[in-house]
Amino acid sequence: MSKQIPLSAADACCSPLARAPLTAEQAVDLAKLFKALSDPVRLRLLSLIASHEGGEACVCDLVEVFDLSQPTISHHLKVLRESGLITGERRGTWVYYRVHPEVLSRLSAVLVPGETPVVTA
Amino acid sequence: MSKQIPLSAADACCSPLARAPLTAEQAVDLAKLFKALSDPVRLRLLSLIASHEGGEACVCDLVEVFDLSQPTISHHLKVLRESGLITGERRGTWVYYRVHPEVLSRLSAVLVPGETPVVTA
Repeated sequence: MSKQIPLSAADACCSPLARAPLTAEQAVDLAKLFKALSDPVRLRLLSLIASHEGGEACVCDLVEVFDLSQPTISHHLKVLRESGLITGERRGTWVYYRVHPEVLSRLSAVLVPGETPVVTA
Repeated sequence: MSKQIPLSAADACCSPLARAPLTAEQAVDLAKLFKALSDPVRLRLLSLIASHEGGEACVCDLVEVFDLSQPTISHHLKVLRESGLITGERRGTWVYYRVHPEVLSRLSAVLVPGETPVVTA
């Protein structure tokens, strides 16, 4: 299982969107990442993995938290992995997942708001 | 046109997802915001508004940037407004849009990655 970050995720970097308009290409790459984050189960999976001891978790750690089947959890993990937000590594019976901190960092940086303009109502 | 932030956006706050697992409710609220960000046109609109002079822009400023009809642009602006990411205020002929910096701030904070654990491959 590859640890490479998909090109679209690796490229999804730019200055904060409050500083300069995104290009069409940047917006397409970023939208893919936000699409992966647009599901509550995937967000919880991401937070469970990111906050898990040692920064990694296997499906065995994740399935018990949800009232969902393992195939459903695996599907959501696949979407997260294909987006570049997490990486998976098989060790023995299980695949262990970790977040790609640099991808999260970039998304976080893009959303930093600019100077708050004074709102005159 | 209301300047209120929808309750789901106002509630969509939590510590960074790398620090503690999101609750189911937090994940549902956050997923709505990320869903609004999961479209390239909406991301570009958000960045055009946020980076526009004075922190606000009207449809007249936005339509010319895209090869899209005004109704399409207006639809995307409505999605952004209903999510709580932007606010709109009618002044004369035009509606002027601004971002809600506190909502962007919260999303940015949620995505801050934790300490990078050492990956032992």
